[in-house]
Amino acid sequence: MESHELDFLYLTDSEAHRNVNVKYLTGHPEDASLFIDIKNRRTTLIPWDYQLAKMSSEADRIVDVTEYQGVITATIDVFAEETSTNPKVGITRGIPYDNVQLIMDKVPNTEIVFNPTIIDNLLAELRSTKSGYEISLMQKSVDISNQLVKEIEEAVLSQSKIRTEMDLAIFVESRMRELGAFAVGFESLVASSARSWQIHTYPRADPKQSLYQKGLALIDFGVQAEALTSDVTLPFIMGPMNSKMKTITETVKHAHDASIDALSDSEYLHEVAEVAVKIIEDQGYRMPHSLGHGIGLTVHDAPLLRKKPIHEAMLQHWAPTRIEEGMIITIEPGIYEKDVGGFRLENDVLITRNGPQILTNAEPISIDLN
Amino acid sequence: MESHELDFLYLTDSEAHRNVNVKYLTGHPEDASLFIDIKNRRTTLIPWDYQLAKMSSEADRIVDVTEYQGVITATIDVFAEETSTNPKVGITRGIPYDNVQLIMDKVPNTEIVFNPTIIDNLLAELRSTKSGYEISLMQKSVDISNQLVKEIEEAVLSQSKIRTEMDLAIFVESRMRELGAFAVGFESLVASSARSWQIHTYPRADPKQSLYQKGLALIDFGVQAEALTSDVTLPFIMGPMNSKMKTITETVKHAHDASIDALSDSEYLHEVAEVAVKIIEDQGYRMPHSLGHGIGLTVHDAPLLRKKPIHEAMLQHWAPTRIEEGMIITIEPGIYEKDVGGFRLENDVLITRNGPQILTNAEPISIDLN
Repeated sequence: MESHELDFLYLTDSEAHRNVNVKYLTGHPEDASLFIDIKNRRTTLIPWDYQLAKMSSEADRIVDVTEYQGVITATIDVFAEETSTNPKVGITRGIPYDNVQLIMDKVPNTEIVFNPTIIDNLLAELRSTKSGYEISLMQKSVDISNQLVKEIEEAVLSQSKIRTEMDLAIFVESRMRELGAFAVGFESLVASSARSWQIHTYPRADPKQSLYQKGLALIDFGVQAEALTSDVTLPFIMGPMNSKMKTITETVKHAHDASIDALSDSEYLHEVAEVAVKIIEDQGYRMPHSLGHGIGLTVHDAPLLRKKPIHEAMLQHWAPTRIEEGMIITIEPGIYEKDVGGFRLENDVLITRNGPQILTNAEPISIDLN
Repeated sequence: MESHELDFLYLTDSEAHRNVNVKYLTGHPEDASLFIDIKNRRTTLIPWDYQLAKMSSEADRIVDVTEYQGVITATIDVFAEETSTNPKVGITRGIPYDNVQLIMDKVPNTEIVFNPTIIDNLLAELRSTKSGYEISLMQKSVDISNQLVKEIEEAVLSQSKIRTEMDLAIFVESRMRELGAFAVGFESLVASSARSWQIHTYPRADPKQSLYQKGLALIDFGVQAEALTSDVTLPFIMGPMNSKMKTITETVKHAHDASIDALSDSEYLHEVAEVAVKIIEDQGYRMPHSLGHGIGLTVHDAPLLRKKPIHEAMLQHWAPTRIEEGMIITIEPGIYEKDVGGFRLENDVLITRNGPQILTNAEPISIDLN
C-alpha cells in the first residue's frame, strides 16, 4: 500500500455491504468500519458492538459508536479528525457510493483511489492462502462435513426418516451442531428433482417436494465448526436414468475430476475453470456460475475460479491468480436444465506443496426408485 | 420519479450489497440488477438465475446473463445499449461505488442522481405499508412465532430437554419448520447470562453455555412462513434477581410498554423512539441500537425507529416518517451491561386504522434457580 502512496485505506462492513476484510484484519465479528493510516501504521476501528470489540478485536483505537448517532457518520467524522489535508484514500470493491461521497464532503481535497487490481487483489491474496492455524480450523469443519455426508447417504438410501427437502435440511443443520459446529456456514440448499434446475433452491416442507421422485436432486450445505466454513454439494441420482440425465451427470463428474487434475497441471486458476467450462460446453451446455471459489471466514471468499474475462470492463480489474500452497477452494461444476433438472458435485480442495488434496468426500449418490 | 426528471433508476442486489427493492419490485428472489426506464415505463431485469426469472419474475425484459460473463458488466452493457445520451440516472443508498463508476465510464455524459431523501424514501415508503395480502402472509409467520413462544417457555421452565444455547437454537429452528415455516427469518441469536451483554450473540454448544446460570439470557428468532419474516426476542430472567438486574429488566419493560402506547399518541416514528430512549437514559443507560424497524421481505426493512439525528450529515438525508396504517414494525428496547448482562424484549406490531395491534406474545420469562 505504501508503495502506491496511499495515506489511508478505508473499509466498511455492514448489512448493506458485506466486506470480510474488516473481520479478517481486526477479528471483529460484527458490522464495523475500519481505517488504516498506512504511513503511521495505525488502525482505527468503529465497531457496532463496542464492548465486544474492546474485549476481542485488534485495533490501535476503538471508537465507541454510541457517542455518535450512526455508524457511517461516526466513521467519517472520526476519519476527518484524524486525517491530514489532501489525503489519498484507498477504497475497496463494492463500498457504498454514499460512504465515498461523505468522505469527499467531509475531508477537503480527498483523492479517492479506487484500484481493485491493487487493493482488493492484495487483500484477497492475503485471505486466499491459509496459515497452518487456519487450515486446522478448516479441518474441523471438514471432519464434520464428511461425517454428515456418510449420515446423509445412509438416511437417504433408507428412504425412511427423511421424506421432504425440509426434512433433509433440518437433519443436516441439527446434526452438524450436535457434532460440534458453531453455526451453519450458510442456509442449506435442498432441491428435489422437480426444482433442481434452479441454481439456488431453498428447501420446502411441502410433501409434494419428496426427495424420492425420478430425476436429479441435491443438497448444498456448509459447516462452520469454529470460524471457517466448508461448502459441499451432494447430488442424488434418482433412477433409473434416461439418456439426458446420463449425459448431464457424466459431464459434470468428468468436469469435476478433470478440474482437480488440472489443479496439479496448471499455473493459474482461470486455466482450471477453462478446462471445466470446455467439457461442459462441448456437450452443448452452459455453466451459469463459476467453477468454484475460496472458502474461509465467508463461504464465498477469494479466490474465484472463473474463465479469463472477455469483456473489457472486467479485464481492466482482472489479474491472473496463481495456484498457491495454502489455498482452500471449492470445485463445483454444475449443469441446470429446465426439463431434466440440476446436477452439481462440489468438494473442497486444499492446495499443498505436493498438489491438490481433496478434503471432502462428496460423490453422486444413486438410488433406484424401481 | 418522473416529477424529479429522472430518466432511469438503477438498482442492484448482490451478495456484496443487499437491496431488497429488486425483490420487492420484480419478485426475483436471487441476485439481480434492475433498471427502470421511467419515461417509457419499461423495466429490464438482469437476474442471476435466468430460467427462474423467466418463470416467476416480473419485468418487461429479462436478460440472459450467461450471454455475458458477469452480472455487473452485463448490467452496464445492457444499460448502455438502451439508454439515451446524457441520461439522468437515479441510484439508491448503499449501491457499490464501482457500479456507479462503470455507468459513468460506459454511458457518456451520465448525470448521477444520488438523492436518498427522494428515491430511497419513496421506495421505503412503498415497502413500509403492507397490503392486505402482505399482512396475511405475515400473519402466518406470526402464528408460528406465537406457538414457538409457548413451546420455548414450556421447554425452558422444565429445565430438561434444553440445556445449552445451541439446544435452544436447534429446537426453535427445527420446530418452526415442522410448523410449516419456509425458512428461518435469520440465524437465531441465543445468549446465556455469561454472554448476553453482547448485542448479537450466536449460540454455542459448549456445555459451559448452560442457559440455567443466574442472570439475564435471551433468544432472538424470526420465522419466515412464506415470504415475510417475523422477529421476536424472548428474555429470560434467571433469578433470584439482584438490584441491577431488577433496574435493567424493569426499565426495558417500561420502555417497551411506553413505546407501544406512544404508537397510539404520536404522529411520527422518531417520537416513539425518543420516548424509549428517554426512559433508558433517565436510568443512566444507553441503548446501542435502534428501538425497532420494519419487517417484511427482509428482517431489517423500512421504516427505522430512531431518534431524530443530531449530526448534520445524517440530517441531510433524513425526513420524519409518519406512523401509517399497514406498517409492521418491531419494538425492541434493550440494555447491555458487561457486568450484569443484556436484556431485550421484542414484539411485532401492526399499525391498524384503530391504532397499534401487538401481533406477537413475547414477555420476559422468569425462572427461579433456587
